[in-house]
Amino acid sequence: MGRWEPDARGRLGEAALQLYVERGFEQTTVAEIAARAGVTARTFFRHFADKREVLFAGSEQLQQGLVEALESAPASATPLEAVVAALDAGAEFLGRHHAHARRRHSVIMANPELYERELIKMATLSEALAEGLRRRGVPEPDATLTAETGIVVVRVAFGTWVSRPEPTDLAATMRETLARMAAVTSGG
Amino acid sequence: MGRWEPDARGRLGEAALQLYVERGFEQTTVAEIAARAGVTARTFFRHFADKREVLFAGSEQLQQGLVEALESAPASATPLEAVVAALDAGAEFLGRHHAHARRRHSVIMANPELYERELIKMATLSEALAEGLRRRGVPEPDATLTAETGIVVVRVAFGTWVSRPEPTDLAATMRETLARMAAVTSGG
Repeated sequence: MGRWEPDARGRLGEAALQLYVERGFEQTTVAEIAARAGVTARTFFRHFADKREVLFAGSEQLQQGLVEALESAPASATPLEAVVAALDAGAEFLGRHHAHARRRHSVIMANPELYERELIKMATLSEALAEGLRRRGVPEPDATLTAETGIVVVRVAFGTWVSRPEPTDLAATMRETLARMAAVTSGG
Repeated sequence: MGRWEPDARGRLGEAALQLYVERGFEQTTVAEIAARAGVTARTFFRHFADKREVLFAGSEQLQQGLVEALESAPASATPLEAVVAALDAGAEFLGRHHAHARRRHSVIMANPELYERELIKMATLSEALAEGLRRRGVPEPDATLTAETGIVVVRVAFGTWVSRPEPTDLAATMRETLARMAAVTSGG
């Protein structure tokens, strides 16, 4: 990560995504990603454990952002209100780069191994939110159920949002999705 | 699966679970499972693809039972009512063997690879329920949201149920969990 490689990480991420879209994830090698980014394979491995992790590098940052937002919600907030604060933070993080998100999503959905990785990351995120709610004093099973509701809303709203060719307001889509979730869960 | 191996499949399943609990999943070999069940390794592979699949052999049957129950719900049923019919079928299937379910659950929760497999099976089940709801004319995102609600309820209720040392009514636990889900989702 020396000065002679300005934003090698960002260029590697973009090069990887381009190649995964053009050739498919399976058919792309780390050597090809590094070559397109104009760095060595060794530099690639300084930034990412493997070619799969390029696609999931933001997961920890996302989780941290969501948990912090949950923790920052006023003490008077209901569990759902605290999760909504986390969703808003998630929308800001995920909703920044629509074209990039669309390409990443298409690569992940085309590859069962990547889709499984995504499921596991979402389960980890859900557990982190549930833990955050328990720290706020929310009992079980409410903590887990509220966290799972949040994750379902993120996944479904994000899927709707990336399916649109032009960027729209992800936070608004999340609110609409949560309203539908409340409606169907109440039998409507 | 000849006459000379009465219920080899059942004995293999029980032997595997015993060994996973005693020694751990990783430390158990197919040869040991076959030996304890009194059959050859070849017989093991006639019944199961690998030692992991012994634990997930019921997944397809469970999925089929849930989807059939969803399809059999009256045409007038709301999406949630159709999913509740599926949950009742799931409770009957999952709630039969409490001691066995407790041991299986403890093995799966102790091994990240098995837990990931469980997550993937649950995602597949959720997609099958969503597809069943769409066939009933339920639009998106309601079909996916209702199916995901059902799966969250199954997972959380099942976790509660297996955590109890003595068997209780799984269907009742599912109803209570769904009621809590409706309450938290509405902001309560």
